[in-house]
Amino acid sequence: MSGIAGIIDSRGVAYPLYYALHALQHRGQEAAGISTFDGQAFFMHKGPGQLSEVFCEEILGRLAGNVGVGQVLYTQKAHRGRIENIQPLNFTFKNHKLSVTVSAALINREMLRSEYEGKGHIFSTTTNAELIAAMIAHELISGVSAEEAFVNTMLRLSGAYAGVAILDGILYAFRDPLGTKPLCFGKTGFGHVVVSESVALDILSAVFEADVCPGELLTITQDGVTHRQVLESDHKAYCVFEYVYIARPDSVIDGVLVYDARRKIGACLAKNPPKADLVSPVPDSGIAFATGYASESGIPYIEGLLKNRYVGRAFIMPAQNLRENAVRMKMNPVRRHVTGKSVILVDDSIVRGTTSLRIVDMVKDFGADEVHLRIGSPPIVAPCYFGVDLPTRDELIAAGLDLESIREKIHATSLKYVSTEDLVASIGIPAEDLCMACSGGTFPLDIKNECSCCCRHISPAGQ
Amino acid sequence: MSGIAGIIDSRGVAYPLYYALHALQHRGQEAAGISTFDGQAFFMHKGPGQLSEVFCEEILGRLAGNVGVGQVLYTQKAHRGRIENIQPLNFTFKNHKLSVTVSAALINREMLRSEYEGKGHIFSTTTNAELIAAMIAHELISGVSAEEAFVNTMLRLSGAYAGVAILDGILYAFRDPLGTKPLCFGKTGFGHVVVSESVALDILSAVFEADVCPGELLTITQDGVTHRQVLESDHKAYCVFEYVYIARPDSVIDGVLVYDARRKIGACLAKNPPKADLVSPVPDSGIAFATGYASESGIPYIEGLLKNRYVGRAFIMPAQNLRENAVRMKMNPVRRHVTGKSVILVDDSIVRGTTSLRIVDMVKDFGADEVHLRIGSPPIVAPCYFGVDLPTRDELIAAGLDLESIREKIHATSLKYVSTEDLVASIGIPAEDLCMACSGGTFPLDIKNECSCCCRHISPAGQ
Amino acid sequence: MSGIAGIIDSRGVAYPLYYALHALQHRGQEAAGISTFDGQAFFMHKGPGQLSEVFCEEILGRLAGNVGVGQVLYTQKAHRGRIENIQPLNFTFKNHKLSVTVSAALINREMLRSEYEGKGHIFSTTTNAELIAAMIAHELISGVSAEEAFVNTMLRLSGAYAGVAILDGILYAFRDPLGTKPLCFGKTGFGHVVVSESVALDILSAVFEADVCPGELLTITQDGVTHRQVLESDHKAYCVFEYVYIARPDSVIDGVLVYDARRKIGACLAKNPPKADLVSPVPDSGIAFATGYASESGIPYIEGLLKNRYVGRAFIMPAQNLRENAVRMKMNPVRRHVTGKSVILVDDSIVRGTTSLRIVDMVKDFGADEVHLRIGSPPIVAPCYFGVDLPTRDELIAAGLDLESIREKIHATSLKYVSTEDLVASIGIPAEDLCMACSGGTFPLDIKNECSCCCRHISPAGQ
Amino acid sequence: MSGIAGIIDSRGVAYPLYYALHALQHRGQEAAGISTFDGQAFFMHKGPGQLSEVFCEEILGRLAGNVGVGQVLYTQKAHRGRIENIQPLNFTFKNHKLSVTVSAALINREMLRSEYEGKGHIFSTTTNAELIAAMIAHELISGVSAEEAFVNTMLRLSGAYAGVAILDGILYAFRDPLGTKPLCFGKTGFGHVVVSESVALDILSAVFEADVCPGELLTITQDGVTHRQVLESDHKAYCVFEYVYIARPDSVIDGVLVYDARRKIGACLAKNPPKADLVSPVPDSGIAFATGYASESGIPYIEGLLKNRYVGRAFIMPAQNLRENAVRMKMNPVRRHVTGKSVILVDDSIVRGTTSLRIVDMVKDFGADEVHLRIGSPPIVAPCYFGVDLPTRDELIAAGLDLESIREKIHATSLKYVSTEDLVASIGIPAEDLCMACSGGTFPLDIKNECSCCCRHISPAGQ
Repeated sequence: MSGIAGIIDSRGVAYPLYYALHALQHRGQEAAGISTFDGQAFFMHKGPGQLSEVFCEEILGRLAGNVGVGQVLYTQKAHRGRIENIQPLNFTFKNHKLSVTVSAALINREMLRSEYEGKGHIFSTTTNAELIAAMIAHELISGVSAEEAFVNTMLRLSGAYAGVAILDGILYAFRDPLGTKPLCFGKTGFGHVVVSESVALDILSAVFEADVCPGELLTITQDGVTHRQVLESDHKAYCVFEYVYIARPDSVIDGVLVYDARRKIGACLAKNPPKADLVSPVPDSGIAFATGYASESGIPYIEGLLKNRYVGRAFIMPAQNLRENAVRMKMNPVRRHVTGKSVILVDDSIVRGTTSLRIVDMVKDFGADEVHLRIGSPPIVAPCYFGVDLPTRDELIAAGLDLESIREKIHATSLKYVSTEDLVASIGIPAEDLCMACSGGTFPLDIKNECSCCCRHISPAGQ
Repeated sequence: MSGIAGIIDSRGVAYPLYYALHALQHRGQEAAGISTFDGQAFFMHKGPGQLSEVFCEEILGRLAGNVGVGQVLYTQKAHRGRIENIQPLNFTFKNHKLSVTVSAALINREMLRSEYEGKGHIFSTTTNAELIAAMIAHELISGVSAEEAFVNTMLRLSGAYAGVAILDGILYAFRDPLGTKPLCFGKTGFGHVVVSESVALDILSAVFEADVCPGELLTITQDGVTHRQVLESDHKAYCVFEYVYIARPDSVIDGVLVYDARRKIGACLAKNPPKADLVSPVPDSGIAFATGYASESGIPYIEGLLKNRYVGRAFIMPAQNLRENAVRMKMNPVRRHVTGKSVILVDDSIVRGTTSLRIVDMVKDFGADEVHLRIGSPPIVAPCYFGVDLPTRDELIAAGLDLESIREKIHATSLKYVSTEDLVASIGIPAEDLCMACSGGTFPLDIKNECSCCCRHISPAGQ
Repeated sequence: MSGIAGIIDSRGVAYPLYYALHALQHRGQEAAGISTFDGQAFFMHKGPGQLSEVFCEEILGRLAGNVGVGQVLYTQKAHRGRIENIQPLNFTFKNHKLSVTVSAALINREMLRSEYEGKGHIFSTTTNAELIAAMIAHELISGVSAEEAFVNTMLRLSGAYAGVAILDGILYAFRDPLGTKPLCFGKTGFGHVVVSESVALDILSAVFEADVCPGELLTITQDGVTHRQVLESDHKAYCVFEYVYIARPDSVIDGVLVYDARRKIGACLAKNPPKADLVSPVPDSGIAFATGYASESGIPYIEGLLKNRYVGRAFIMPAQNLRENAVRMKMNPVRRHVTGKSVILVDDSIVRGTTSLRIVDMVKDFGADEVHLRIGSPPIVAPCYFGVDLPTRDELIAAGLDLESIREKIHATSLKYVSTEDLVASIGIPAEDLCMACSGGTFPLDIKNECSCCCRHISPAGQ
Repeated sequence: MSGIAGIIDSRGVAYPLYYALHALQHRGQEAAGISTFDGQAFFMHKGPGQLSEVFCEEILGRLAGNVGVGQVLYTQKAHRGRIENIQPLNFTFKNHKLSVTVSAALINREMLRSEYEGKGHIFSTTTNAELIAAMIAHELISGVSAEEAFVNTMLRLSGAYAGVAILDGILYAFRDPLGTKPLCFGKTGFGHVVVSESVALDILSAVFEADVCPGELLTITQDGVTHRQVLESDHKAYCVFEYVYIARPDSVIDGVLVYDARRKIGACLAKNPPKADLVSPVPDSGIAFATGYASESGIPYIEGLLKNRYVGRAFIMPAQNLRENAVRMKMNPVRRHVTGKSVILVDDSIVRGTTSLRIVDMVKDFGADEVHLRIGSPPIVAPCYFGVDLPTRDELIAAGLDLESIREKIHATSLKYVSTEDLVASIGIPAEDLCMACSGGTFPLDIKNECSCCCRHISPAGQ
């Protein structure tokens, strides 16, 4: 996952980058970084934690310059704690100054790393950003122009990626030919903005211009945006999980308002509803789905579970008898809404099944007669090779079980997942342009059979 | 406001108090404290900030004992920064050990303080808790029993209050005769719990037993709860603002589920609705109201504004052109839901009007044709003498303006407040038992005319 | 111990108090507090930790007013963690505003507490400061003048104390009739300063005026200092431990420069010195003594042990084989200075003997042939009833052992303590005016036999 | 400056590295880092600040492995805030794993960086460590052995350096042929230790074995240390400033105990002493010199200035009249030692002269009749090209002034610097093997004339 932003603004970019990344915080909370360029030198600050832990006003004040890039980082377990991996990464070589930040999962990563090690680069991080930077640098050193350096690099990358970079004061943005990772851009009165999701344009009052096309390279200066279609693909592989899980509901991704896709999915789930007293979302993930379900079914939308607005740490009491409080600190059933009632709970997904089980149990503890669970995504049966941090097959509850067995395990009165057809229709993008590999679809790139060996080979996506 | 809790638990009380106060965090975020008693000595920890900033596991581990009290504190501006005012307060005198924490606004505060200064107590805080402790102590020293000490103290207090105290290892709870401040109790398998709102029982899996009756004193030991009706009143003055604004929607206060009161108010607001495309809450305060409005009107419930899940600091850019971002960091309009649409926005209240104005403007900036604002409380025209931190008359937008003028000032297409009759009917408590002084009702106690002098006299509610 | 300061300064007192307390930091590192008064209201800040952890520039800026008091606090184990005990303490009663901070150990503490509880004060701390405040308050309420209130209070206190207080904008300072706790005052061009040690005058460029006489009360306004001798005593009980251990060497206490007393003690220790290659202090406590020893003996002053300038935490390695590093992180023997040499080490005192043992062993490990230990105080054989935090008799190495046995236990080649006669002569104050109870002298006040009962009674000195 | 350490220890290296770096903390307080290797992977932690701010026990516990390197970093102004420059730096390439940390100032740095950029490495830091790592990597990739890679790299570096590195689990240490930067090694019962100064061996109870010879490469495994003399030089350039200023007095550097060199310098300064009452060090820098002066002259060693043990921040009072307190917070004259006295003050050096002026003035303010200043180094007249952070010529008080003018400027009664001959004799190393360029000696390497251009070229020493 992770969220990226690149901005050119004649008024300075530190504050706009901070705001844009704030709007993308849901894409990664483990680290954050901003690099700016003032025509002469880079200014950079980054560190572990959420944006508000990493940045303060004094630090923003020091990040001078009218062009900059930044990232909020999600880290896969294997890479956690590697502070050197926090992006952006800055490089200096042969009078060039390059700053790169990408969200990427590359299939030919190991092959490329090996090649560029052979060419003389020694890697100080395990990120794809450093690999891509080394590729761009070698192109430049071999004498091609800046734009060709990016083009030649894109031509050699195989996988899913979205990136922004500053090279000698010019801002570049690039997106993989299948469009798996989202990226869009807009303009303000003072410059241009490239971001992972459109909500980051909203917070800057920037006008949405377009999604970066799959396979496209943008070259952005104060004067405007130049487009170059570097790669073509006869089909796309837009990530379905962005629509049901990752992206913010108020984002528009590749033409689709995420909230509306979810609302339509909710409506699809409402065909032949059980007799019930209320439809309630599991907060906050199920809200958009639940509003669609309620509208379609006519069953009233009433919250049966409420989220605690305050974040607290769930300390475990020595006697352990308060362990269940960890869930209750996050959400609380509304007793009178569920006691003696038939409740339809709507959520976005079931991964391991443990959280669903606890929620169903909790609602029953508060007296619900029936708890019907409705899920806005198909069963997840396979890990993601494109960087979404799903657990291994063994841990996925739907990987080895049929619907009835899952229902039994999570104690639900009834259970229904959205069908693939309804999902596709709700999103409104042709099935062949969507990646649904995690729910049993074909993987959009030709990779070897899933096995411990090749998994290791391609999954350490770096960031 | 502020939230209080008192617990007896044979397994220890530090963790249960932490969890209970977490569920009451919305009642006060400026300071927090817990005091426990192990039969011999008090253990106490308190400090400024939210609960999770004040407490860590190591500190909880040190708070020994099977009886304790705690508070999350809201502080009126005039008292901020006075760390000595953070409660609970512990006292030792004549072999007695007393810990007190109250949420109180007393009309005869100054008279009582003066009296007890005359009796020899020198005050080290400006809290009502110290005043009440001094009163209890003098009763004890004069030779009456512990229970009579509390009774005699309650007989002399005039105002709104809810308190818990530990005296020599026994837990006491008391509530003012008008019932203005909420207080209820329940039991676990291991003891008893008294809290400001029932949600704090839920988080402990405690069974709700009853509200503490207005004017009642509870004496609580491991063995059980003794009730004593100390004061009677022919009418009550339950705070309407608790139902529409202060309390958590999943709390049941004096028999009424707050969520349902709000949902019914929303339904009342939906009589003769304007032609509109969607009903949206102002998140999160308007949600319960909006679900009622949508159900009643048949207009679909679709969020036109979404809340950012992450808390960030709104730094002001030097050039100031991003100041409006402060609101956008908290909530974001969903462009496609509002552009070219007629939107009904539902919120709980309008105080100064500045936030409403910014929200209406923001929704219009995103292209809404019409913004109809519906408010779940009547116009607020007077400050509160019972401790709710409302601004002065001058700052209240509704104090001097008629409906049309307010509507104009906040740029809404149309504006409607709930009527007093609908509000009363929605809560389901007779009007004579509700305090609606802030929306123009009679103040339930006989105080002098509102003026700068007497305001000063009674409003410094202490905590 | 603990250090106190009271300042009147027409330019404001927050900064001067911060600087004065910084110079007194060695008297207490566990908490710090400052209270100022601007003619109308108190401003206060306090917290656990060293001064630089408790205060920052922003906080100092808020402490308005031209009169203030402050304390750096040393806490006896039994009272640690009681944040309510951090001084100064502020009180409001009957139009009076009183702030008190004292360093005190009172023999009639329990009797007085009980009496004032009977008179209506309920105690919220275990400090002597609150007791003294309650006494002053009752005098005032009974109608006597401010000055008489202090006088009457002093007349009733039995023990060792030094205190400063603000009452209704006037600064008061008072010292016990035996002079056990030091207190002196001086003036700047802008006001007056009262402090525990003269070094706190130096840092403010204040001119030393005099020690506060034992039994004296000072009343200080912008206009000047009024003296009143409240109590007389035919003998004094100046604390010997101040001269050899507690006070800073650059302080002048009751007419004696501490450094010179220590240097003379060092010279006394040098009678009949062993044959040795060098005299080295145990840093930093032994330095002044060692310079005197070197001058007198003619043996060169060469550091055989050097202190690490940087404070570090001594983490214990899992395998524990680095435990001894805790001492080595603090000081390091200079190998070439000690290998094959006869070393005279000079220190101020031996309490439990554990540190001395480790140091002697360490110097021997680095190759010293002989380690002669010379100690600037007599053997410590009894705890202190006046607030100096010495361990119990059982833990004092000298309590039950003769000189030879102590020497053996700490592995020294030879051991010599200063004699009582030499100590008295070096300080230059008659023996009858010194308290040497901890080294076997008579306790200056008539207390009952030392026993678990009366110890408990008098030793919880409060602060 | 900066301090480095490399350790092999069969019990783990995190704790030993922490302790060793603690002993070297005086060489750099701006950042700290440790990298360990467990046979498979690196573990690293680093950050800005002193060691105790960067590391805690939990973090040390995570740094697994039996070989590791670490650094405490001093940063020249131009490089401050570049967190990416904090060492050690880790690299992965072609199945090699390399971690490097160096203290270096290279004359051919820019030429080498350019060359290796040409060879394909793109730099992400401005450190010499990355440059050296790139050089080693290219050697390895070109097929030479690990040892030859280090040898070939050393052959190409021109300048002053000391470094430690882990390459594929083996520890390497290397030192420049002139020996400008100190480096020594020792052994424990469990492995080997290489450190900047011998005090870091002492803290680990390691036995000193030898200095790393100038131009030598050590290859260190659990089994032992292999020596290889890579470079020879007919003369050395041991840094004189290490002996008088940088190194800890208890360190033995290239055979010389720093304390003794300073003590002998002090004795040299005492030839024909003025008539004076006492010799006092400027604490702590002048202590060793002053003991030598006192012994030689027979004038008593008495501290006229005492250092405050506690670190405090010198807040500047709004009215500014306490600005001078900044110095007084650090040290305090002992009034009775200096009033009416002739004082000889001994210090290690005068750089800008501002601190000396303030100290002389302060001692005179406290009443000294005469202040004779004696300095343990010759006048500093030129900046250092080998990484010691001296100011520019313009700011050096001795650069343009004769002795009498300097004396006048700092208000001293008399002033004397140690002569170059006495300095050399005191250290005991032939003049031709010492670098005294900063006090007017010849620069040991052939560099171009000092000018703004070449200064820029060679001075950004990296770390």
